[in-house]
Amino acid sequence: MAIEQLTLNQVNREMQQCIQNCLDCHSICLNTVTYCLQKGGRHAELAHIQLMLDCAEICNTSANFMLRGSDLHARTCGVCAELCQRCAENCDRMGDDAQMKACADMCRRCADSCRQMAMATA
Amino acid sequence: MAIEQLTLNQVNREMQQCIQNCLDCHSICLNTVTYCLQKGGRHAELAHIQLMLDCAEICNTSANFMLRGSDLHARTCGVCAELCQRCAENCDRMGDDAQMKACADMCRRCADSCRQMAMATA
Amino acid sequence: MAIEQLTLNQVNREMQQCIQNCLDCHSICLNTVTYCLQKGGRHAELAHIQLMLDCAEICNTSANFMLRGSDLHARTCGVCAELCQRCAENCDRMGDDAQMKACADMCRRCADSCRQMAMATA
Amino acid sequence: MAIEQLTLNQVNREMQQCIQNCLDCHSICLNTVTYCLQKGGRHAELAHIQLMLDCAEICNTSANFMLRGSDLHARTCGVCAELCQRCAENCDRMGDDAQMKACADMCRRCADSCRQMAMATA
Repeated sequence: MAIEQLTLNQVNREMQQCIQNCLDCHSICLNTVTYCLQKGGRHAELAHIQLMLDCAEICNTSANFMLRGSDLHARTCGVCAELCQRCAENCDRMGDDAQMKACADMCRRCADSCRQMAMATA
Repeated sequence: MAIEQLTLNQVNREMQQCIQNCLDCHSICLNTVTYCLQKGGRHAELAHIQLMLDCAEICNTSANFMLRGSDLHARTCGVCAELCQRCAENCDRMGDDAQMKACADMCRRCADSCRQMAMATA
Repeated sequence: MAIEQLTLNQVNREMQQCIQNCLDCHSICLNTVTYCLQKGGRHAELAHIQLMLDCAEICNTSANFMLRGSDLHARTCGVCAELCQRCAENCDRMGDDAQMKACADMCRRCADSCRQMAMATA
Repeated sequence: MAIEQLTLNQVNREMQQCIQNCLDCHSICLNTVTYCLQKGGRHAELAHIQLMLDCAEICNTSANFMLRGSDLHARTCGVCAELCQRCAENCDRMGDDAQMKACADMCRRCADSCRQMAMATA
């Protein structure tokens, strides 16, 4: 079932949505790394692969802070919003194949909800 | 959206369901650690907290192997199935509050799909 | 051998020291979680365990950003410095047993080097 | 300082050496991913990058299980030994540049100590 439907303790609706977005973004970024390495060429350039690995990891970390109910999730969400935004822009530059577009869209959605988390508690 | 609805490259339906279960199980275990530390008493005993942290981490690792399309996901899924099974049994022993029951159910579902992954490729 | 003695690509001396501190701090925090759950009482209170888990995770994430040579390591190091600082203060409050003191000292050393990383690139 | 010199609770000498090897192997694998993507060609092929990412992750997971003092570390160490062995062989095939050789050597050392951990508790 979707993360949003799990019974979570002390996680409000907006945060649960943000956890879902972080885990979705983490998932599609990791999966897209493999896709890009298969395609080769500029898809497989260091800067692009690195940014997707960075984005996947900080999304995972931010989700975990929220799942633990940590006070400091706003700080990781702030960094996460920045990385997701950059990753979305990078994916956009790769052109218009379906996987890159899905990854860019998910990064943007995650950036939006992490930005709200970061501001809400700032 | 649910992980199962993401556009993932070279991940079949059954594996995508297993990724979802691993991330759900990871999420509820991490969240339940906080719940148990709040409750205290036997809920907060080392063996129980440790097993939920172990379970959360191996679920995350197994999901990541599958998301990357790694050949060796069957090996991590095998360990994951074993840990989820033990974690479910431990949660059952904590009695019948809703959070422990939800965590135990999710662990069992994840154990089932990881076991199938481990056997399919063995 | 120590991380500092590994042959790492495009990692300067100062960064390699920071990676070592992050992995040391990650390691001692995770280990101290188990120690505190065994001791029980205020050592096992949610706020304290949570902060050590948070600290361990962001240290790991920051080390990974530096190991990958990511441009944005300064952003994760900034959050890491803040969390290590708080974790050190929390450990100090637990009194003067050897494990808490070793953990607090390591957190402070890691906070210092992460702060320098965060400023160097800011 | 080296992980082996940290004050760790309930971790014997052999296990502490294994934790050090896992974190060293994790570190050099992540760092070598960046090196290989920079070099391009067969160094940047999917199978090779994927195996180094898998190896880095399971090393991290195994180290964390040992740091928490988890009963089930032998299970993660078993998978870790297998992945390190494969990763070493893959690195060997990349020829004789210094980074690949250092990575292969570290993977072999980690495989050895994880194999002993896996057998000791089996």
